[in-house]
Amino acid sequence: MAQPKNFSASTVRRLPSYLPVIRDLQQEGKEFVSATVIAEELQLDSIQVRKDLAMTGIAGTPKKGFPIEDLTDAIERFLGWNSTCDAVLVGAGNLGTALLGYKGFLLHGLNIMAAFDSNARKIGAVIHGIKILNAETMDIQIKNFGVKIALLTVPAECAQKTADILAGAGIEGLWNFTGLKLKVPKNVAVQQEDLSAGYALLRVKMITPATPVT
Amino acid sequence: MAQPKNFSASTVRRLPSYLPVIRDLQQEGKEFVSATVIAEELQLDSIQVRKDLAMTGIAGTPKKGFPIEDLTDAIERFLGWNSTCDAVLVGAGNLGTALLGYKGFLLHGLNIMAAFDSNARKIGAVIHGIKILNAETMDIQIKNFGVKIALLTVPAECAQKTADILAGAGIEGLWNFTGLKLKVPKNVAVQQEDLSAGYALLRVKMITPATPVT
Repeated sequence: MAQPKNFSASTVRRLPSYLPVIRDLQQEGKEFVSATVIAEELQLDSIQVRKDLAMTGIAGTPKKGFPIEDLTDAIERFLGWNSTCDAVLVGAGNLGTALLGYKGFLLHGLNIMAAFDSNARKIGAVIHGIKILNAETMDIQIKNFGVKIALLTVPAECAQKTADILAGAGIEGLWNFTGLKLKVPKNVAVQQEDLSAGYALLRVKMITPATPVT
Repeated sequence: MAQPKNFSASTVRRLPSYLPVIRDLQQEGKEFVSATVIAEELQLDSIQVRKDLAMTGIAGTPKKGFPIEDLTDAIERFLGWNSTCDAVLVGAGNLGTALLGYKGFLLHGLNIMAAFDSNARKIGAVIHGIKILNAETMDIQIKNFGVKIALLTVPAECAQKTADILAGAGIEGLWNFTGLKLKVPKNVAVQQEDLSAGYALLRVKMITPATPVT
């Protein structure tokens, strides 16, 4: 399949939600799954689900749908979830602590191996099984770990400074939970988690319940 | 303008990020702003920004762009952010506590007036200025408050039961931070915050840096 010109962020956002549906069907002994079945289960439009699945490069079998194992593989490979990635978290405050305890990450191959904080009372502690290290030495430690992904949960006022250090330490993927828009070198991918975006979607769904948001 | 058949979730997600850019230009004394300027500032495609702005119903002035005040109004009205909405939060754990401390919500008209928890040690406490009430009585209290929005940050295993209570208490907008897909009555809008979705986007950006995700 030819590489598409760009990926739809909505497609990428939806793909993870298909995996548990597919796994449930597999456990029921099914060998094939159709876009229609996934769409019904998740109350989505089946044409949209078909388009989403096509983006992973998989081809279905007419009248049967997709072989379940191949489909899981195709989605996980497309998302880069077929191999484990080590990551660090910087900023073990309330949000950071919540993320350290989130069990879903390991399921998707994201392994938070350590966290950094500058608070002396936190350094050395273990939160949800993950050790809190001194943020002052994160530059050297991240290089030693060879980690490429960082979750950024520091206060907004420290966000840019921390991002600079992380980029310098070889981080290539920055998952930014601070409200701040970061300036990073071109080789660093940033995913900005914007809580306002979720609230915008909720309000639009409430205001115009008859208009689907897709 | 005719009502569009559906709203693009990506558009709704992007619109909030335009507001700070527009406000900055206004503070610099500008009276008009073009989609091109916003696009450059946020490193987005200008055609996409133009489409996003069109969804709010605003019409630009040829060669000048959009009157800044009208544009802010149009976006805020479209998102329902032009008036304050009261909300409650249920589940004052780490994530709940982080959200209670998030200063951006009030800016967008979301006022978390109270939180509920079932932990006796938390009930009666005040976190980030917000009182923690007994979750056992949330049904009656939410009805008394007349609140229509709830942020759900309870453990996944309590999520459906809590959602049932909230729907029964008159909640019309449920912002679901638990990993669980909820079953709710038709009159309740749900916004599911899926942390996996953000990680999927980050990984796809890392794997295929040359392919824009839009």
